[in-house]
Amino acid sequence: VTIVCVPTAAERDLLEDVPGGGRVVVWDGTGDPGADVAETEFLVGNYLGGPPSAEALARLGGLRVVQLLSAGVEPWLPVLPDGVVLCNGRGVHGGSTAELAVAGLLSLLRHLPDFAAAQERGEWSPRTADDLDGLRVLVLGAGDIARRIGAALRVFDAEVTYVARTAREDVRTLADLPHLLPSARAVVIALPLTEQTRGLVDAAFLAALPDGAMLVNIARGRIVHTDALVAELRRGRLSAFLDVTDPEPLPAGHPLWTAPNVLITPHVGGGTTGWRRRGYRLVREQLTRYAAGDQLLNVVEGGY
Amino acid sequence: VTIVCVPTAAERDLLEDVPGGGRVVVWDGTGDPGADVAETEFLVGNYLGGPPSAEALARLGGLRVVQLLSAGVEPWLPVLPDGVVLCNGRGVHGGSTAELAVAGLLSLLRHLPDFAAAQERGEWSPRTADDLDGLRVLVLGAGDIARRIGAALRVFDAEVTYVARTAREDVRTLADLPHLLPSARAVVIALPLTEQTRGLVDAAFLAALPDGAMLVNIARGRIVHTDALVAELRRGRLSAFLDVTDPEPLPAGHPLWTAPNVLITPHVGGGTTGWRRRGYRLVREQLTRYAAGDQLLNVVEGGY
Repeated sequence: VTIVCVPTAAERDLLEDVPGGGRVVVWDGTGDPGADVAETEFLVGNYLGGPPSAEALARLGGLRVVQLLSAGVEPWLPVLPDGVVLCNGRGVHGGSTAELAVAGLLSLLRHLPDFAAAQERGEWSPRTADDLDGLRVLVLGAGDIARRIGAALRVFDAEVTYVARTAREDVRTLADLPHLLPSARAVVIALPLTEQTRGLVDAAFLAALPDGAMLVNIARGRIVHTDALVAELRRGRLSAFLDVTDPEPLPAGHPLWTAPNVLITPHVGGGTTGWRRRGYRLVREQLTRYAAGDQLLNVVEGGY
Repeated sequence: VTIVCVPTAAERDLLEDVPGGGRVVVWDGTGDPGADVAETEFLVGNYLGGPPSAEALARLGGLRVVQLLSAGVEPWLPVLPDGVVLCNGRGVHGGSTAELAVAGLLSLLRHLPDFAAAQERGEWSPRTADDLDGLRVLVLGAGDIARRIGAALRVFDAEVTYVARTAREDVRTLADLPHLLPSARAVVIALPLTEQTRGLVDAAFLAALPDGAMLVNIARGRIVHTDALVAELRRGRLSAFLDVTDPEPLPAGHPLWTAPNVLITPHVGGGTTGWRRRGYRLVREQLTRYAAGDQLLNVVEGGY
């Protein structure tokens, strides 16, 4: 039997039972693990908290697998005991983040905030908008989130080009951006934050976009130079949908709040109620593979 | 050579030339056609106006084809001369209407109006939303608009069921609605207005939906009983996105304007700037087929 440790009682209820047989214990990763938790073989990381201390983790003598429900694994690397397999939550948050990007882009394109304001006044005031058909959209990124955004936009005949750090068959590279930006009507940022992407969308990047272009950022705030974006928004040249900002949270009185033609949501792309459902679908799949001795998914450290 | 008549100079510019050879004349369908227009063989209907009178149409002695840029053809049927082929604009407006439906559904689901209100106040106030993953959505309709809506929602793993007037392999019928409504989290109306669909969404239909369900109408206002919907909205049981209403335009002071949890846009689904581009892509395709003697697309009357 496999002892599986999850961080909350709600997650124990979602898991129901252990595929392949076993027992579920609950520990949120803080404080010392009790005797039952010390027998843990398969640990699900606490999505809403940090990792346990290295000392606490070392008390789990039979630990074989740590399954995270986040895409990022950085805080766990320094505390992971030798020989333990680390798997991330790739795919768990992608769909909900991608759908928010599409919601934001369509809201900008179809002037939904203007119609909401007219509704407040009780006014039926049609105005013409453009639509996605033939719209040239650069999706920066080529992972799960980026691909879903592109797939949804292509349903409406947008001309989608993926741009990422490494070239693939249908993916251009960041080095191609100077050629791609002048004809892009929208840019959607779905890249991880790395040394290469930090500040990527700076004044020169934004200046290369044509008048009326839309910027969507559902990735990380620090990929965009906030001051450069505020300047372009104030000029009336660009519009933007931002689920992430720099700084974050955006403080009261920050100029982004009152810039024209910007929609801001408070980093809610991945934090939907669906993540636990998806997360535990992944956990069940992993436990099924673990019980059968099959290769686990999403292994980022330790092999298996 | 083929004489092609279009309603405006802007459309003549879009057409550029006549595939297969020919000449373009301009007539908006009002008043008497001049001598050059009387030679018209292929007439493009005025999307923003009604049809010409039967008398005026009869003056076009060589008329063979009338191409409309709307899906509906009803006003043309009484005035169409015998033997003239009538083609509609199926597909010209579908993409933009479908994308508005997706924008509205996602705005409701992800609480975008609440975040816009928080932005007005300069407040970073995250709240949890559900997402499309596993969400059971009934799309009423199975034409171009309905299929695009379903395809986009499926990118985000929604469980989409099409419901239309006639059963097909993957389409349930309106008779199945009593079984489908109680588990539907969202209903999107993409049906034409007919005797069968007028008032389809009445008090009993709405009462069969579970608490928290979303209604999206981008089709025709009269498919929904407005009073019954207002009652459910005021109870806080349902939310709605409406691009069409009954009455329409919605007059100042109408209770829908101030009902809770409703987003209203003023019938802007199909009226995007892209329709002319798509419309004349269809016209060029039709003229190419006409010149080659091939079967025309979208023939609704007269065969060819």
